[in-house]
Amino acid sequence: MRNPHSNGNLPEETEENGFGDGVILGLDGGATSTVCVCVPFFPYGDRFPEPIPILGRAVAGCTNRNSVGETVAKDSLEQVISEALLQSGSDKSDVRAVCLGVSGVNHPSDQKMVENWIRDMFPSHVKVYVQNDAIVALASGTMGKLHGCVLIAGTGCIAYGFDEDGREARASGAGPILGDWGSGYGISAQALTAVIRAHDGRGPETMLTSTILKALGLSSPDELIGWTYADPSWARIAALVPQVVSCAEAGDEISDKILVDAADDLALSVKAVVQRLGLCGEDGTAPFPVVMVGGVLNANMKWDIGKEVSKRINRYFPGAHTIIPKVEPAVGAALLAMNFLTVQIDGS
Amino acid sequence: MRNPHSNGNLPEETEENGFGDGVILGLDGGATSTVCVCVPFFPYGDRFPEPIPILGRAVAGCTNRNSVGETVAKDSLEQVISEALLQSGSDKSDVRAVCLGVSGVNHPSDQKMVENWIRDMFPSHVKVYVQNDAIVALASGTMGKLHGCVLIAGTGCIAYGFDEDGREARASGAGPILGDWGSGYGISAQALTAVIRAHDGRGPETMLTSTILKALGLSSPDELIGWTYADPSWARIAALVPQVVSCAEAGDEISDKILVDAADDLALSVKAVVQRLGLCGEDGTAPFPVVMVGGVLNANMKWDIGKEVSKRINRYFPGAHTIIPKVEPAVGAALLAMNFLTVQIDGS
Repeated sequence: MRNPHSNGNLPEETEENGFGDGVILGLDGGATSTVCVCVPFFPYGDRFPEPIPILGRAVAGCTNRNSVGETVAKDSLEQVISEALLQSGSDKSDVRAVCLGVSGVNHPSDQKMVENWIRDMFPSHVKVYVQNDAIVALASGTMGKLHGCVLIAGTGCIAYGFDEDGREARASGAGPILGDWGSGYGISAQALTAVIRAHDGRGPETMLTSTILKALGLSSPDELIGWTYADPSWARIAALVPQVVSCAEAGDEISDKILVDAADDLALSVKAVVQRLGLCGEDGTAPFPVVMVGGVLNANMKWDIGKEVSKRINRYFPGAHTIIPKVEPAVGAALLAMNFLTVQIDGS
Repeated sequence: MRNPHSNGNLPEETEENGFGDGVILGLDGGATSTVCVCVPFFPYGDRFPEPIPILGRAVAGCTNRNSVGETVAKDSLEQVISEALLQSGSDKSDVRAVCLGVSGVNHPSDQKMVENWIRDMFPSHVKVYVQNDAIVALASGTMGKLHGCVLIAGTGCIAYGFDEDGREARASGAGPILGDWGSGYGISAQALTAVIRAHDGRGPETMLTSTILKALGLSSPDELIGWTYADPSWARIAALVPQVVSCAEAGDEISDKILVDAADDLALSVKAVVQRLGLCGEDGTAPFPVVMVGGVLNANMKWDIGKEVSKRINRYFPGAHTIIPKVEPAVGAALLAMNFLTVQIDGS
């Protein structure tokens, strides 16, 4: 079943879709949009071409049925898949596998339902995988290999890892009430708290007060309370991270401490996962990848949270090498599908 | 207009309602219920009889229209007032003033609306006051006098104060997102976070794990995440305070630290208010009352949070004397009405 032509270069093209061994669909079902990419199938384990050839790419709205309802979610999924296939010049019969990464906050039964929707769209031989978005993010940094640790820090944060035997572990990812202080939400909530504390006399003055009030168009810290509870969206709070970073860059001590604490906490999440899985080996120096994903880690500012986290991880584990993925999560999902498919082919 | 008979004893009884100078209604509009008491009018400034004679007392459901809707809120208010008057043998024409304490989270326009509802229930000469629940709580400890500081720590927490000139200040009371760590919610959220951190390897083991899981009927810390986000009610989280206290009493260091931090934070809120108002005088030793209210402060356990807060307040301000009110908030509202009414009578 292995493609004899895939020796590290592109697979041989055919007349139908340009790639004889079929295509893989990778999907990233995010909170606001859904991305679908169509890539040629390469047996996993062979060297992938760089960059990965993207035959088609389409974007649709959110496909989380808890957000948008079942009908809209299903229609968007159909639409984004059809568009990506159309762009690639392929049709459903060319598809060998589909892999969708979805946010970890969904219930397992939700994942099963989405899996069944996709299954119903394709012939029965097509493999369908629905995976936690953290696993897909790991795959986007390791080119599909499920080994090492991924740290995601955007609105929320989570550390997730796999050892060579497929054992999994996670840390953080428990949401704002349960203390994800390294997340974008956690950083911003602490900044807002610092403004309130300075205002009512419990804490020291901070540059965050004028910076955040200006960003939100408010005239007094008293108005922050109304603003905060007017809309329970975590992402709206988390959007204040750039203000915290700019205050820290300008020398504000309170902001600096919030970011240092966040970097400590994020590195601690990775440490917990690595230790539970023994990724660092018995002497603590074995090499393993740590994939870093999300707006908090890749903000590319002077006060570089991602770099601070990397430093701390390397202090814990000299063998850890941090990776910022070169491909988007949807491509990670496609690479993961190739991994699963190749294992199944080899194993059958 | 002053009652010539009120010389510190009960006012003279008359045939109609037992008290010649009319009655006062005090209401406490809490999150789950509304209490109304009917008490005889005493000119404020005279010595009140102890205990305050309660002529009637009634309880109805929540009267917050944001919780239960306008019709239900208004009906409950009518009902609880009628019942209290009926019990006291008085009718609406005997009422001199009505004071309602409502939770500070409501919008000013909500307070105005409730004020108008009550006004419409009574003849036009009846004075109607709608006040923040913190002010009513202060009055319940100072027998109606608006001077000093009140600290409320229940599900939420707030420090609120008045100086002799009527200047006000507050600290905390900004809700869970904005760091009210000394509140029942704050204490419990930190305890839940400690369980998650112990479980995923970021933090030390704690007795809180088994104690909280048992209290909630859960079998694993993983289930805590679902439990926490299944219902956004702050009171449900805050109800775990007794578990934290019992773990601290049994020697659990994590729980002890959470409670010590909470006591520090609550005392700091009082300190901020006292300093802004200068209640402690220029040399920091002037006497003033600190009224302590709410389940977190009056839990009456071996690990006594209220006592720890008092100790800290007295370390800051040797002149502070902490008071646990002997009367319920509804009576505090009635005492406050007498204060306002007497000032208006004296001033007119």
